[in-house]
Amino acid sequence: MSELSATERTRHRRLREKGRTDRAALYEVLRAGFVCHLGVISEGVPMVVPTVYGFDAGHLYVHGSSASRSLTGRESSGARAGSGSPDGDADARPGPSAGPSVVCVTVTHVDGLVLARSVFEHGVNYRSAMVYGVPRRLEGEEKLAALRILTEHSAPGQWDYARRPSRKELAATTILAISLAEASVKVSSGPPDDGEGPDAALGLWAGVLPLATTWLAPIPDPLLPEGATPPDHIGGRTGTRLS
Amino acid sequence: MSELSATERTRHRRLREKGRTDRAALYEVLRAGFVCHLGVISEGVPMVVPTVYGFDAGHLYVHGSSASRSLTGRESSGARAGSGSPDGDADARPGPSAGPSVVCVTVTHVDGLVLARSVFEHGVNYRSAMVYGVPRRLEGEEKLAALRILTEHSAPGQWDYARRPSRKELAATTILAISLAEASVKVSSGPPDDGEGPDAALGLWAGVLPLATTWLAPIPDPLLPEGATPPDHIGGRTGTRLS
Repeated sequence: MSELSATERTRHRRLREKGRTDRAALYEVLRAGFVCHLGVISEGVPMVVPTVYGFDAGHLYVHGSSASRSLTGRESSGARAGSGSPDGDADARPGPSAGPSVVCVTVTHVDGLVLARSVFEHGVNYRSAMVYGVPRRLEGEEKLAALRILTEHSAPGQWDYARRPSRKELAATTILAISLAEASVKVSSGPPDDGEGPDAALGLWAGVLPLATTWLAPIPDPLLPEGATPPDHIGGRTGTRLS
Repeated sequence: MSELSATERTRHRRLREKGRTDRAALYEVLRAGFVCHLGVISEGVPMVVPTVYGFDAGHLYVHGSSASRSLTGRESSGARAGSGSPDGDADARPGPSAGPSVVCVTVTHVDGLVLARSVFEHGVNYRSAMVYGVPRRLEGEEKLAALRILTEHSAPGQWDYARRPSRKELAATTILAISLAEASVKVSSGPPDDGEGPDAALGLWAGVLPLATTWLAPIPDPLLPEGATPPDHIGGRTGTRLS
């Protein structure tokens, strides 16, 4: 298993058995979700936007939009210039083009509440990955391949099922690639810490209240003909867990 | 219903019927979760850390830790100096103390995948709130009150049930308050957009695959005596939806 980098930015300051340094752990966290929080600096202020992502062994791909404008230092030519939401809408303004900048992408899964005997020891069980990198805007074949990865990550089977992007739609889509070279993973799991301390004598219940995120039954577009059933690659996900 | 501010940073650039400007919508999004993504600038680079939050009518409270160190321009004196995780652990390094800076806090609930007839129209149904503000580090009574809000937001009933923080524990806890004055909310819901366009003729299934986040049954700390049952304020949440 290859090691994640440990640059000054991603080195774990306090371990508490939470830092993971293997690539498999990174892929595991990335696999378990499809919306990340992308942090950029826009006119001197941090901006955190939720957006969809996909990944392969070496890169994270985000469906940006013109968060990219302030990030890559290049103006978007696309009609979809806009960012700030999971499907590419916009709060972002084009910043002064200061050239490519480092961004931070964080993916978090909240697995449960840790309910301890003392308020102080309360916490959260979670899995989180943080990736730092300079986004590169993809074009041509690379862009199409990344869009496929991105689509298949959240909606496996749709690339072959739905109509693929036209040349014009592709031009109106911005895909950014961010290297996975500088990344860190933290996982917190298990019961609270105070079961062997003096607070155990309080006789209070303690433990974890877990959370699960699950796919429900598909809701058909009301414009579909009566009785239209979803294909298996969609309907078959119902009841399965996202994370 | 009072209006959210519309500063240059939070004005909605593209509406698509997603921007909400009423305070009730903001509170609704904040109520539906307990982990936010806090964006700060640390040594010139954006850093996005998941962390727990609570709120009242005027402020968001985050359980920081020393993301606070680079934010508030004051060194933390606490033993829990560390940030970068939902319960306050650390990837963050103390940056050069440049004084108080604006941070961005984003809370996102992913409600489902929008599966359209074309890949281009695919998207995500979500509710998201973005708050910009200069965090203020709380002390004394204000800090205790905010910690209570924060605790009760994720774990209602625990402030009265669990042992409250000692003076020493309180000193080792950092709570930041961020005004809700500059905030924006976006909500995307409903079926895909292409049901009345030319792609409708493709005869493909289209609709939404919804996601639900649900509390599962409590997992007792293995150190508890056999048969210990959780109090109602914990056990009673099982099966209810977080968002």
